[in-house]
Amino acid sequence: MRVLIVHAHPEPQSFNAALTKAAATALRDAGHEVTVSDLYADHFDPVAGRHDFLQVADSSRFHYQSEQAHAATSHSFAPDLQREQARLLSADLLVLQFPLWWGAPPAILKGWLERVLAYGIAYVDGRRFTSGLFKGRRAMMSVTTGGTPERFRPEDVYGNIDQVLWPVRRLALEYMGYDVEEPFVSYAAPRVADAERKAYLDAWCARVVEAAGKPVTSVSIDSEALIASTGPAAWARS
Amino acid sequence: MRVLIVHAHPEPQSFNAALTKAAATALRDAGHEVTVSDLYADHFDPVAGRHDFLQVADSSRFHYQSEQAHAATSHSFAPDLQREQARLLSADLLVLQFPLWWGAPPAILKGWLERVLAYGIAYVDGRRFTSGLFKGRRAMMSVTTGGTPERFRPEDVYGNIDQVLWPVRRLALEYMGYDVEEPFVSYAAPRVADAERKAYLDAWCARVVEAAGKPVTSVSIDSEALIASTGPAAWARS
Repeated sequence: MRVLIVHAHPEPQSFNAALTKAAATALRDAGHEVTVSDLYADHFDPVAGRHDFLQVADSSRFHYQSEQAHAATSHSFAPDLQREQARLLSADLLVLQFPLWWGAPPAILKGWLERVLAYGIAYVDGRRFTSGLFKGRRAMMSVTTGGTPERFRPEDVYGNIDQVLWPVRRLALEYMGYDVEEPFVSYAAPRVADAERKAYLDAWCARVVEAAGKPVTSVSIDSEALIASTGPAAWARS
Repeated sequence: MRVLIVHAHPEPQSFNAALTKAAATALRDAGHEVTVSDLYADHFDPVAGRHDFLQVADSSRFHYQSEQAHAATSHSFAPDLQREQARLLSADLLVLQFPLWWGAPPAILKGWLERVLAYGIAYVDGRRFTSGLFKGRRAMMSVTTGGTPERFRPEDVYGNIDQVLWPVRRLALEYMGYDVEEPFVSYAAPRVADAERKAYLDAWCARVVEAAGKPVTSVSIDSEALIASTGPAAWARS
């Protein structure tokens, strides 16, 4: 199984870094092939823009999806996106490792979703959810929170963790067709005792190795054929 | 009433830009004072990091909130953050204008939340929701979607728009204490006819002017006193 861990934390000594390192080691020990995209270490630029593309489809007006569709058929994504897209397309299991900041992934990871998961690469018009391009593959989030588990009870202030992670799970990962595992959550990571953090690490390794052991069917994605067959996207018809 | 519109779209000819421009004009015509933070035009950097700070609290390990707390008491935020924080602190009404990308604000806006809404400026330990520092002030989102309204029915694939916007509303704006208006949503903005887009613009102007007409109580925020009175934050005690 090929696993891509997208890691989004600025501090190499952080608990997020420990979770990624432990998962990579456990997965490799179990015989899997692991790639880590360490967004902070790689100085990944999360701002979607003209610099995403080596060519220009329309210089008079910047429409992001149209430029993405053009780049997908003309193979003209910027080098950083080509690298990340190749990693994404070859991964059977995608793991997102991040701290919950303001109830969501850090901007550097949100920008990875926007720039890497481009139209024509990660989705096309009419192919989503059960017909999504990544159907048969698996995805999983590993999240650390400052808040205690009590804060995330359905009746408490933040709402259940599933409600908090809904946009990433439903409108990104499941939209693309992924089978999404239940998230692994290290609650109150900066507040708990070392023994509890150690227990989180062990539990996370067990969970991710288990997920990597489940069967997948990764169908290869032919961007040119997909865009040719779906015709102009809905947003391009208006 | 002082209004800050944080605008997050790369294309000046976009419908998002039209919404921001129309709102600013309507608000000024109604006698309000309007500032627009145009994140793309300003080349706002959304990546949280050491460059947020002119001083270093701990050079051996980067803990973001600790550095923010230090900067809040030593007045050592980087100039771009000082500017945005001054705008934020002086605004009675905060408006976030953005397209829904992968179910959430664009990375450039997510990073604005992370960097500008710093510990000691926008929140401190023990002051959140009904005791939040921005209690008495008002906030509002104006969002464009590619998806049709049907997609956002509770029983459909994306879930209700309130569910999608929950992290921003609940874990950011309400966390800070804001009274949050119902979001204004321009559904399927790229797909509808021009007359419908015109109707969106008119409805949005009416909504935002109405919101700006409601009473607010903006209490000034004294970062040094707040941090001194709350003591070490929970994450610093572990």
